[in-house]
Amino acid sequence: MLDLLKSHASVRKYKDEPISDETFHELLHAAQHAASSNFVQAYSVVRVKDPVKRDKLAELSKNRKQYESAALPLVFCADLKRLEHAVSLHGKEILAGATESFLVAVIDTALFAQNFVVAAESKGFGICYIGGVRNNPETISELLELPDHVIPLFGMTVGVPEETNEVKPRLPVEAILHEDTYDESKYDEILTKYDSVMEEYYRSRTANNKNSGWTDVMAAFLSEPRRTYMLDFLQSKGFLKDT
Amino acid sequence: MLDLLKSHASVRKYKDEPISDETFHELLHAAQHAASSNFVQAYSVVRVKDPVKRDKLAELSKNRKQYESAALPLVFCADLKRLEHAVSLHGKEILAGATESFLVAVIDTALFAQNFVVAAESKGFGICYIGGVRNNPETISELLELPDHVIPLFGMTVGVPEETNEVKPRLPVEAILHEDTYDESKYDEILTKYDSVMEEYYRSRTANNKNSGWTDVMAAFLSEPRRTYMLDFLQSKGFLKDT
Repeated sequence: MLDLLKSHASVRKYKDEPISDETFHELLHAAQHAASSNFVQAYSVVRVKDPVKRDKLAELSKNRKQYESAALPLVFCADLKRLEHAVSLHGKEILAGATESFLVAVIDTALFAQNFVVAAESKGFGICYIGGVRNNPETISELLELPDHVIPLFGMTVGVPEETNEVKPRLPVEAILHEDTYDESKYDEILTKYDSVMEEYYRSRTANNKNSGWTDVMAAFLSEPRRTYMLDFLQSKGFLKDT
Repeated sequence: MLDLLKSHASVRKYKDEPISDETFHELLHAAQHAASSNFVQAYSVVRVKDPVKRDKLAELSKNRKQYESAALPLVFCADLKRLEHAVSLHGKEILAGATESFLVAVIDTALFAQNFVVAAESKGFGICYIGGVRNNPETISELLELPDHVIPLFGMTVGVPEETNEVKPRLPVEAILHEDTYDESKYDEILTKYDSVMEEYYRSRTANNKNSGWTDVMAAFLSEPRRTYMLDFLQSKGFLKDT
């Protein structure tokens, strides 16, 4: 089981083999057994079957290749709309605009999605998370007719792998684990060593080999503004309104 | 594998059996292979060993019983601080205050945590997510000396199960799955049926049986304000500052 988790790598090219509805639903059902904060189950999945919609989604999320070849082109949504319906049956309203409600929905969706990934990979399928749906969240919301209090959090492609990326070496456990108190004094030494590990990996991997470590890639990537419209978008969908 | 996922239920009482550092690190290492947005790996785990700190954490998160008996009392943190160190090695700064950066860190942390849960449960351990650390996030941050750009997202207890809760029936797949477009017209019928399923479950379960369904529990729970300080707290830690 740990070997299955440790073998995860994104799949960006799939074989032309379908996944049956039965199998897909079985994976979803298993995934739904992830924990959910107070059992609110605040997530939805949109499966994009229509080829025109799929092509638009591929273009909007800037992940054409994956979405075109995947058996299951999916969008995972943080969803408080179903809960609105649930409580309206009792003449009540939820506080969907509260930051805490947003946090709950995002975490719920992510736990569910990762359980889905483990389920899918255990059956030999490959997956790729598509953060790129957040490149055009408003247009994608229109495309999928997402109402208020539902947002496309990330996409995912699923299928039978044609090519699998190599597994990237993760940060050493001591970088992410702290005992009793958070200790940032250790980072510079650990990260410098990790750069060597990543340099070796990037140099020797078969595809897209390059000359870089980890911290330099992060520096180049994270110091530029990204998706600066995100707060406006979330608020336009009724989230984070307690500002 | 799907059977393992489907058997998940929270464990709130543990046997007095330790988990070795070796095993714990092995679980963490496997869990780190969850996907990470642009490989930023924006999470940390604080393990609380010190009994005084553990008791305080238990009290602050209002989960005394679990935290007292668990072999591993953990706090999972969304963490952009390590990335600050990484990019500072190259004379740069990250945009930690951007809503998109916050989203990335929260999702990264949740994917990692759920992978950790699957790893732990595959080894026969039980777990319980503790959303209750968000009851007193400021005091818990002080207790664990979390710097800016690190927040306690949720806690977790891990150990050898003494008692396991029963598995709750999840929403039917058709409630969470949409085809091409989001369809909320189906909810009222599906949720009414699901209420009957949950009523039967709550009536017949061995512990804490009660007379309720799902929508009424949600209505009672979600219509009251909760953790209304959350946005202020997050901003005080340097997140969501693009408002």
